[in-house]
Amino acid sequence: MKTKAYGTYNPKEKLQSLTIDRREPRPDDVVIEIAYSGICHSDIHTARGEWGPTHSPCVPGHEIVGRVVKVGKKVKKFKVGDLAGVGCFVDSCGKCSPCKTHEEQFCEKHTAFTYNGTEMDGKTPTYGGYSTHIVTKDKYTLKIKKGMPLDRTAPLLCAGITTYSPLKRYGTKKGKKVAVVGLGGLGHMAVKIAKAMGAEVTVMSTSPSKEKDAKKLGAKDFMITKDPKNFAKVAGKFDLIIDTVSAPHDFTPYLGSLKVGGTHVLVGAAAEPSSVGAFGLIGGRKSLAGSLIGGIKETQEMLDFCAKKKVYADIELIPAEKINEAYDRTVKSDVKYRFVIDAKTF
Amino acid sequence: MKTKAYGTYNPKEKLQSLTIDRREPRPDDVVIEIAYSGICHSDIHTARGEWGPTHSPCVPGHEIVGRVVKVGKKVKKFKVGDLAGVGCFVDSCGKCSPCKTHEEQFCEKHTAFTYNGTEMDGKTPTYGGYSTHIVTKDKYTLKIKKGMPLDRTAPLLCAGITTYSPLKRYGTKKGKKVAVVGLGGLGHMAVKIAKAMGAEVTVMSTSPSKEKDAKKLGAKDFMITKDPKNFAKVAGKFDLIIDTVSAPHDFTPYLGSLKVGGTHVLVGAAAEPSSVGAFGLIGGRKSLAGSLIGGIKETQEMLDFCAKKKVYADIELIPAEKINEAYDRTVKSDVKYRFVIDAKTF
Repeated sequence: MKTKAYGTYNPKEKLQSLTIDRREPRPDDVVIEIAYSGICHSDIHTARGEWGPTHSPCVPGHEIVGRVVKVGKKVKKFKVGDLAGVGCFVDSCGKCSPCKTHEEQFCEKHTAFTYNGTEMDGKTPTYGGYSTHIVTKDKYTLKIKKGMPLDRTAPLLCAGITTYSPLKRYGTKKGKKVAVVGLGGLGHMAVKIAKAMGAEVTVMSTSPSKEKDAKKLGAKDFMITKDPKNFAKVAGKFDLIIDTVSAPHDFTPYLGSLKVGGTHVLVGAAAEPSSVGAFGLIGGRKSLAGSLIGGIKETQEMLDFCAKKKVYADIELIPAEKINEAYDRTVKSDVKYRFVIDAKTF
Repeated sequence: MKTKAYGTYNPKEKLQSLTIDRREPRPDDVVIEIAYSGICHSDIHTARGEWGPTHSPCVPGHEIVGRVVKVGKKVKKFKVGDLAGVGCFVDSCGKCSPCKTHEEQFCEKHTAFTYNGTEMDGKTPTYGGYSTHIVTKDKYTLKIKKGMPLDRTAPLLCAGITTYSPLKRYGTKKGKKVAVVGLGGLGHMAVKIAKAMGAEVTVMSTSPSKEKDAKKLGAKDFMITKDPKNFAKVAGKFDLIIDTVSAPHDFTPYLGSLKVGGTHVLVGAAAEPSSVGAFGLIGGRKSLAGSLIGGIKETQEMLDFCAKKKVYADIELIPAEKINEAYDRTVKSDVKYRFVIDAKTF
């Protein structure tokens, strides 16, 4: 089916309006009329070819919410009119060990990422949410509860699950102390979710200007990371660090701020290697861990948690024609905290 | 009480025979006549002043087994004639969070390390196991089952618990695949314990000459780490890596050999920082963790496990006069796999 979209034929060019061909719905597919699509920093890296080769055209977007307008014969999970969401992937083998343990993002055969990936045939390109419609397998499509503000819900599909998953895995709850490093799209979700889970949150940032916002978002404390003395003051304080910074940085001072057995989780990835001192890990048996989005089951759990706790992204809503400007502003961290595109404007 | 020992008055000098003054036993103390004392690489770093200042005299040794020859009035855990062991620490506050959760090695107030540390007063120096006798608090003294070969049991008090603790924490059992990096004192214990827990073990080493021994110790496979192609062959294979190497090395290729959710645990500490790529942690949500010996409860559990499974160190027994030679040989990795000093020779 011919579908209006925004994308680029060449990583060196700006995004533009174009038409793509979506597959006709199969028996287990739903067709979603997209309402909103968030802009994730990954979209920019991909569209600009910074993370390797891109398809032509490349249509980014993996923070998608909308309404089901058509369902295949075998679909039981959705009916026409239901709200639905699509996150970072749209298919996987379903049979390997990670798939069976609900971590389809680590499928041993092939995770079909929502855009700039391929379907399970390894050939057919996938196109993301900068588009009026998307066709997805019901099993890989999320349910969105009525009453959720759709525009502010879209970023949960990537920024939400990326931070929810490690917060949940490492036992965030009342009585725990969590530090969030960096206050951007991911960071602001980490603060809100950690707070909603009951934790006491500290934001660590290089910019003093972020203090006011950090506290408004729910942080109890704020710390400037540029001054080593500040790390001495928080030695042994945190149960968990959620590190959203994607520039290389020495992890050693952060490890010092963890309690015995604490974990420093990276959700922002620097392309260049960072430095870490073994003593910082061994003393206090600490861990430096990574986390990558979450499986479908956990993403649904996160959406339901956010609905219950009324946790949504802070966004700036834009029409499609402002995507290129939004990209430049995102790179400069000039957004509070996520751009979301109104899909009516594609 | 005057006690014969071996130690050094100056980190630049060799170890020599000397006499130290042990405290008279308190009501909760036991006096142990030492039978054997293992030589740990930490002894060498400390005696030679490589890890900061040393007491004068410095009497190393924290792999101690012997027989109780005197007990204080309040001691119920031991009676005269019992076998006993002392590991890396001899006291802690007993009241802080780590102490209450049986991780006295991370005491928030003060862990009284067995040698080159101080007692809880923060002043009285501690002297280790290179000595005929030691006086220790019963609660911090381990029980050694009858029938354990005492000389081969001594190294369990440090090398044994250092490897047992992370193997246990990260769920080593039948069906799990464990890689052990480096085949020295720690590495050979890691192989034996992982195998005794039921895991399939691979030894990773820079030296092809270690293959025969690795398999004799219980490893199923052996891999040379110098060739990057070998890492490609084990991509996604291991549940756990126990890394005993204390020279800086890039952790990224090792992370690639872990399964989804796998952990690379450092038990050997390089003084200089190492390099780690965030993508290696985020893809497959892997962890790089540290581990430091174990608490008293877990050390006892490890000793009982080793007694049941008949897991002991491979050692070379030496008299006290060979300590300096043994130090030089340990630094050159010329020992299979632990030197143990016969305490009758002090």
